[in-house]
Amino acid sequence: MVGAGQLARMTYQASISLGIRFRVLADSPADSAARVCPDPRIGDYHSLDDLLAFAAGCDVLTFDHEHVPGEHLAALEDAGVPLAPGAAALRYTQDKLAMREELTRLGVPCPRYAVVASPGDVAQFAAQTGWPVVLKAVSGGYDGRGVWVCDDQEQAAEVLAHGVALLAEEYVPFVRELAALVARSPHRQGAAYPVVETVQRDGICREVLAPAPGLTAILAEDAQRLALEVADALGVTGLLAVELFETPRGLLVNELAMRPHNSGHWTIEGARTSQFEQHLRAVLDLPLGAPQPVAPQVVMANVFGGKDPDVYSRYIHVMAADPGVKVHLYGKAVRLGRKIGHVTVLGTDVAELRDRAMRAASYLGSGTEEPA
Amino acid sequence: MVGAGQLARMTYQASISLGIRFRVLADSPADSAARVCPDPRIGDYHSLDDLLAFAAGCDVLTFDHEHVPGEHLAALEDAGVPLAPGAAALRYTQDKLAMREELTRLGVPCPRYAVVASPGDVAQFAAQTGWPVVLKAVSGGYDGRGVWVCDDQEQAAEVLAHGVALLAEEYVPFVRELAALVARSPHRQGAAYPVVETVQRDGICREVLAPAPGLTAILAEDAQRLALEVADALGVTGLLAVELFETPRGLLVNELAMRPHNSGHWTIEGARTSQFEQHLRAVLDLPLGAPQPVAPQVVMANVFGGKDPDVYSRYIHVMAADPGVKVHLYGKAVRLGRKIGHVTVLGTDVAELRDRAMRAASYLGSGTEEPA
Repeated sequence: MVGAGQLARMTYQASISLGIRFRVLADSPADSAARVCPDPRIGDYHSLDDLLAFAAGCDVLTFDHEHVPGEHLAALEDAGVPLAPGAAALRYTQDKLAMREELTRLGVPCPRYAVVASPGDVAQFAAQTGWPVVLKAVSGGYDGRGVWVCDDQEQAAEVLAHGVALLAEEYVPFVRELAALVARSPHRQGAAYPVVETVQRDGICREVLAPAPGLTAILAEDAQRLALEVADALGVTGLLAVELFETPRGLLVNELAMRPHNSGHWTIEGARTSQFEQHLRAVLDLPLGAPQPVAPQVVMANVFGGKDPDVYSRYIHVMAADPGVKVHLYGKAVRLGRKIGHVTVLGTDVAELRDRAMRAASYLGSGTEEPA
Repeated sequence: MVGAGQLARMTYQASISLGIRFRVLADSPADSAARVCPDPRIGDYHSLDDLLAFAAGCDVLTFDHEHVPGEHLAALEDAGVPLAPGAAALRYTQDKLAMREELTRLGVPCPRYAVVASPGDVAQFAAQTGWPVVLKAVSGGYDGRGVWVCDDQEQAAEVLAHGVALLAEEYVPFVRELAALVARSPHRQGAAYPVVETVQRDGICREVLAPAPGLTAILAEDAQRLALEVADALGVTGLLAVELFETPRGLLVNELAMRPHNSGHWTIEGARTSQFEQHLRAVLDLPLGAPQPVAPQVVMANVFGGKDPDVYSRYIHVMAADPGVKVHLYGKAVRLGRKIGHVTVLGTDVAELRDRAMRAASYLGSGTEEPA
C-alpha cells in the first residue's frame, strides 16, 4: 500500500487475519501505519524511482490516498506493475472535471457544474444556480484545501487568484449527506455495504450513522445500485466510496474515493466483513466477504486532537465510562483539530448511540464531553 | 509478550486499535507473531538473560504460553519486572499438583486425584475410581505430551517408566466439555464471557460453540462465578480460561490457562471485546471491555494442516463458498495435523453454523469437507 496513514494502518491490521504479506510505502517511520507494520519502506510517492523500488517487492500495489501523480501511475503500469485500482480508474479521483464528465455521460445525477476561469465565469454560473457557489480545484488545490464555498463574486475572485484550475458547482441544499460504500473485484464481483449518513461540521466528518436512519428502502437501493454501477463503469478494483447529497429531488453524487473511507470505519466491528478486509480481498481478487451489519444500528465518531495531547490519560476514563465503546487510536502525534482516532458503538437506538459515541470521542480528544 | 505463537499474533492485532506499543520475544523470526509484529526480539525463554534483556524495553511482561521456568519468573519479579499474570498465579498453570491442592482448598470441584509414584499407587487409586485412570505430568511431560489415559496397570507402568512426576486423576464420564473465560485486572475488576462448549477429538479442540448450546442458566452462572472466584483467589491478572467437565454431578475443573485461549477465539468477531483486547486491557490495568456476544450463536472451528500444504489455493474456494465465514490464518508452515488457523461464523442456528464452520475449516486444512 502506497501511503501509511490510518487507512493503511487499519488495512494492515485486517491483513494479519488473512495471512498475507503487506508492506507500506511511508513518508516517515513515524507515519501511522509505519509504526505498526513490519519493514516499512520509506520513500516519496512523488518520486517514480521510489514507487518503482517499492513495487519491486510487491505482487500488487494499492493506495492509502489519491495523491500519487497520474503520470507515475501510468508509468508504473507501463512497467508492468499491477495497480488496484488501476490508473484509468484512479484518474476520476484526481481530476474532478473528468469525474463530472464521466458521471454525466453515465447518466449519474450530479450537481450542476461548469469550468470557470474568471470571476465573470463564476457570476454567469451563479446566474443559473444562485449563490453561494462551490469552487473546487480540478486537481489538488492550495493551502491543503480543494473546496471553497463562495458567497459572491469577490470571494470567487480570491480563490481564482491562486491560479489553480477550477470547477464551479452548485451549492446543493441537501437534506443530509450519505455515503455508499461498495467493493468490486477484478472478477467483477460486487458487494454493497448499507448506506450511511455522514454528519459533518465545518466540512469535516464527525459522525457516521450506519445505516442512515430513516432512509427509505428505495433511496438506499438507489444509492447502492448507483455505487455498484459507477464502480463497474469506471473499472474500480477495491473499494469505491460514493459521497452523496440527499436532496428533495433525489440523490446527487458529491465525491468519489477509491480506497477505504472514513465513512466505512464502522464496519470493523459493525459488519461481517470490514471495509479493510474487503479492500484486500478485492485487490487480491479473492471472493468478497459478506457486507451485512451485525447490529441494527452502528455509530462511529471521529476523535480530533484537543489542546492537551495526553490522550492516554483520558483513555482510561472513556473505557471505564462505557465498556461497550470500541476505541481506535491511530498512533499519530496529537495536534489541535487533527484526526487521531475514532470510536464505534453498536446497538439499536441511534440517539443513545450518538450520545455515547460523541461523549467518548469528545472526551478522548479534548477532555470535555462537548464536541471539540 | 513472551512467546510469539498465534496467541501473540492475535494479541498484537488487537493492540493496534489501542494505540499501544507491543513487542514479542520469539524463538525465531519465523514464529507466527514475529512475522507480523515489528521489531521482534529473538531469544530463548529458558534463558533468564534473554528474558531480562527483553524485559528492559517493556513496561509489563505477559505471556503467550505457560512454559517460562518458574524460577525465572521469580527472578524477573525480584529484578523489579512487572509480570501479568504474576509468578504466584502462573505457578498454578505450571504445577498441576499445586493447582489441584489450591482449588480443593478453595472448595472448587475437581476430579478425584492422587500423587502416584508406582504402578501399585495407580492400581490403588483405580480401586476407588475404576479404570481408565488419567495420568498427568505434574509439570511438563515427555514426547510433547503431558496427559495419558491408561486402561490398566500395564499402561500406567509404561508412563511411569519415563520418570516424570505424575498425578492420577479419575476419568470423568462427562456429558461434554465447557470453558469459562474471564478477565481480571489489577484493580480487581472482573469480566466473564459466555460459557462455551469445546468439542474435542483425540484430545484436540476442534470446535467451540458460543454460548454452549442448551446450557442451563444456573450452570452457566455457576461456571462464570467459579471462574471469577478462581481468578480472584489465585490473583490472576489478565485472562483465565477454566476448562470444565459438565457431568451429571455438576461441573468439575479440568485445566486452567492464564492467557488468551483457543476457546476464546470466537470473541474476535463474536463479542463486543475480543479476548485479546481484554487481556491487554487487564494486563495494562485499563477498565475491562464489554464481554457480551454480538450474535445469538457463534461457532469457531480450528484449521489443521493436511497433506497438501498449499492452503492459499484453497482459500479462494472457502471464501467463495461462504462469504460470511471469517478466516484467520496464523502464517505458520503447514504440517500434517498442525493447527494453522481458525474460522468463525455468526448466526442463530447452531447446527447450520457448525456445518458451515467445519466445511470451511476442513476444506481449508485438507482440501476435503471431511474433518481432517
